[in-house]
Amino acid sequence: MPATGAERDAMRRALSLALNGPRGVNPQVGAVFLSATGEPIAEGWHHGAGTPHAEVDALSRLTPDAAQGSTAVVTLEPCNHVGRTGPCAQALIDAGIARVVYALDDPGEASSGGADRLRAAGVDVVAGEQADAARAQLSDWLAVQRLGRPHVTVKWAQSLDGRAAASDGSSQWITGPAARTDVHRRRALADAIVVGTGTLLADDPSLTARDGDTLLPHQPVPVVIGSRPTPADAAVHRHPHSPLFYPTHDLAAVLDDLREQGVQRVFVEGGPTLASAFVTAGLADTVLAYIAPVLLGGERMALTDLGVASIADARRLTIDEWLPLGDDLLAVAHPSALEEGS
Amino acid sequence: MPATGAERDAMRRALSLALNGPRGVNPQVGAVFLSATGEPIAEGWHHGAGTPHAEVDALSRLTPDAAQGSTAVVTLEPCNHVGRTGPCAQALIDAGIARVVYALDDPGEASSGGADRLRAAGVDVVAGEQADAARAQLSDWLAVQRLGRPHVTVKWAQSLDGRAAASDGSSQWITGPAARTDVHRRRALADAIVVGTGTLLADDPSLTARDGDTLLPHQPVPVVIGSRPTPADAAVHRHPHSPLFYPTHDLAAVLDDLREQGVQRVFVEGGPTLASAFVTAGLADTVLAYIAPVLLGGERMALTDLGVASIADARRLTIDEWLPLGDDLLAVAHPSALEEGS
Ligand SMILES: NC(=O)c1ccc[n+]([C@@H]2O[C@H](COP(=O)([O-])OP(=O)(O)OC[C@H]3O[C@@H](n4cnc5c(N)ncnc54)[C@H](OP(=O)(O)O)[C@@H]3O)[C@@H](O)[C@H]2O)c1
Ligand SMILES: NC(=O)c1ccc[n+]([C@@H]2O[C@H](COP(=O)([O-])OP(=O)(O)OC[C@H]3O[C@@H](n4cnc5c(N)ncnc54)[C@H](OP(=O)(O)O)[C@@H]3O)[C@@H](O)[C@H]2O)c1
Repeated sequence: MPATGAERDAMRRALSLALNGPRGVNPQVGAVFLSATGEPIAEGWHHGAGTPHAEVDALSRLTPDAAQGSTAVVTLEPCNHVGRTGPCAQALIDAGIARVVYALDDPGEASSGGADRLRAAGVDVVAGEQADAARAQLSDWLAVQRLGRPHVTVKWAQSLDGRAAASDGSSQWITGPAARTDVHRRRALADAIVVGTGTLLADDPSLTARDGDTLLPHQPVPVVIGSRPTPADAAVHRHPHSPLFYPTHDLAAVLDDLREQGVQRVFVEGGPTLASAFVTAGLADTVLAYIAPVLLGGERMALTDLGVASIADARRLTIDEWLPLGDDLLAVAHPSALEEGS
Repeated sequence: MPATGAERDAMRRALSLALNGPRGVNPQVGAVFLSATGEPIAEGWHHGAGTPHAEVDALSRLTPDAAQGSTAVVTLEPCNHVGRTGPCAQALIDAGIARVVYALDDPGEASSGGADRLRAAGVDVVAGEQADAARAQLSDWLAVQRLGRPHVTVKWAQSLDGRAAASDGSSQWITGPAARTDVHRRRALADAIVVGTGTLLADDPSLTARDGDTLLPHQPVPVVIGSRPTPADAAVHRHPHSPLFYPTHDLAAVLDDLREQGVQRVFVEGGPTLASAFVTAGLADTVLAYIAPVLLGGERMALTDLGVASIADARRLTIDEWLPLGDDLLAVAHPSALEEGS
């Protein structure tokens, strides 16, 4: 039997409950239990790694009698693995749940199979209810599962001829106000904002996401990569979040650690050396090149070396959008190879 | 009295007669004479430098009786200077012309004033009839008068990050077929196509404007600038026009000479050294940057040095158009300073 009207309403509610939980290592998931007559009898959500999953959180609010024969409406397929919290599918079976309606299949190798286990135990299972909404809500977490690391956006500003600065190093401002506003808006969508020590020492950036002088509500964690020490009076120390320092050049290790810190989206703001290192390592999932209608010439490239010997090795991009921003143009792109390979 | 219907018809005819003359140092001009009753009685056009101007060419087909009291309809103001052909204004006065209808004022300092001279001699003068059409027809010639040299378009192809080639020099093809077709179309609009000896020696280009393998009807004259000799078997020697060689780095002198050869539009196709020299010298009136969605990194920049020390000296461009061409993007631009200064 497909989802009933009461179950569809419950899924909408579960999707909004999910947002009570933190963004992080684990997905944001919500759950609503309905009685046999379709009345909501319990709500729950996942409160973060190490705490019960959403359906178990809701279940814990019910007496064994009330749980018996009820329907669980959950935004993600109940898990099947023995993690810190035990498999949720089994918990639902043990509680005598009659029916489970969920939105999204669990993408994890170890954790998927919950629906099968439920069905095998005679529970009625409906998959895919409001799956698109759930997928949109979990898109960043799903990207982390797919990539096996946080999603990385590499951003730079350049003159039309690919320079990051004039010969004397001056670069403020290559791009105009509309482009700078756009950068801040996109910074605020990230969990971490990353620079190399070169940029930190040269520019002393604050690494906040701002609207004019006002801090935007969500601030990414500032991250500095490189071995040179950061001065004690650097602006980054006044960031609302404590900065993370990685005295290494091993970008994959940095991303692994950031993932464990719950970072899903990384915004790399340069400079040229670090941006080129991310591109060369194949760790740039989205490229944002802000192109100003200016010619600079000279030696200060926005990207340095990418290890491209011949045109056949060129790092081909697929353009998602050429977006005019005032007098500037933003190229939003992703590596063509990633697309063809996936 | 404004232009009559017969005079308007005669101007349309004169505009099409003008095109019988050659593009070159002098403007393409056409003329039609009308009798006192509005009948066309003679036609003429300018056949090129050193030959009679259009109105004198037409006048020469009339008996003195027929000329007397007639109306001259000309696409350009009759000239007032004593050039190789004598002032046309005076010739019309001497012939007893009663009325002159013309489209465009003569922009030349030495040659203008013809209308005043005619009026002073009692001739009825109507200026500006179909001026826009005449201006469009003479736009390249007018640009030469305004600039004091041919109009220069500097074109290059680049990766998004501003490279002209990969490390090993390979560059075919950075851009796609739509961009290459566009280049050939624009080549065919130019009178001369220019490369430096570096490009000639590296690429042995044919410098023809083609549609696939077919030559387009109009071929620009190939021009090579630089001191290194061109090999006897270079492809440029098989061009439909004999190439011009300028063993110099003095770009202004080259443009002066090209102007005297009747060149109105120059299309500079590189390479990086020559393109940068044109930009640095302020001799790039139009910039065409074909941007491919590819990252290359490395040392082979599409533009080299432009003498820009600080961001304040940046060569700011005004973008006329960001034109998508297949996967590529063409930036059509002109120097912002030129616009503000004019
Ligand atoms: N146009 C733009 O969008 C933009 C953006 C940001 C900065 N900038 C400009 O860029 C300039 C700084 O350039 P930069 O290239 O020196 O700065 P950078 O890329 O920020 O820092 C380079 C440093 O990053 C560290 N690093 C970490 N991982 C690395 C890896 N895998 N490979 C290589 N290095 C790694 C190294 O530091 P250690 O040597 O300490 O180990 C290296 O010296 C400044 O002038 C700034 O204004 C421009
Ligand atoms: N991406 C593109 O759009 C594009 C277009 C064309 C070429 N290319 C590539 O560019 C490479 C050639 O680069 P290139 O820079 O050597 O070629 P180039 O710019 O064609 O030629 C440079 C030469 O031009 C001469 N020259 C004339 N006037 C000059 C001036 N005012 N200042 C300096 N030099 C002047 C000099 O020749 P002398 O030393 O002989 O006096 C100089 O060595 C080739 O690999 C080619 O494939 C790319």
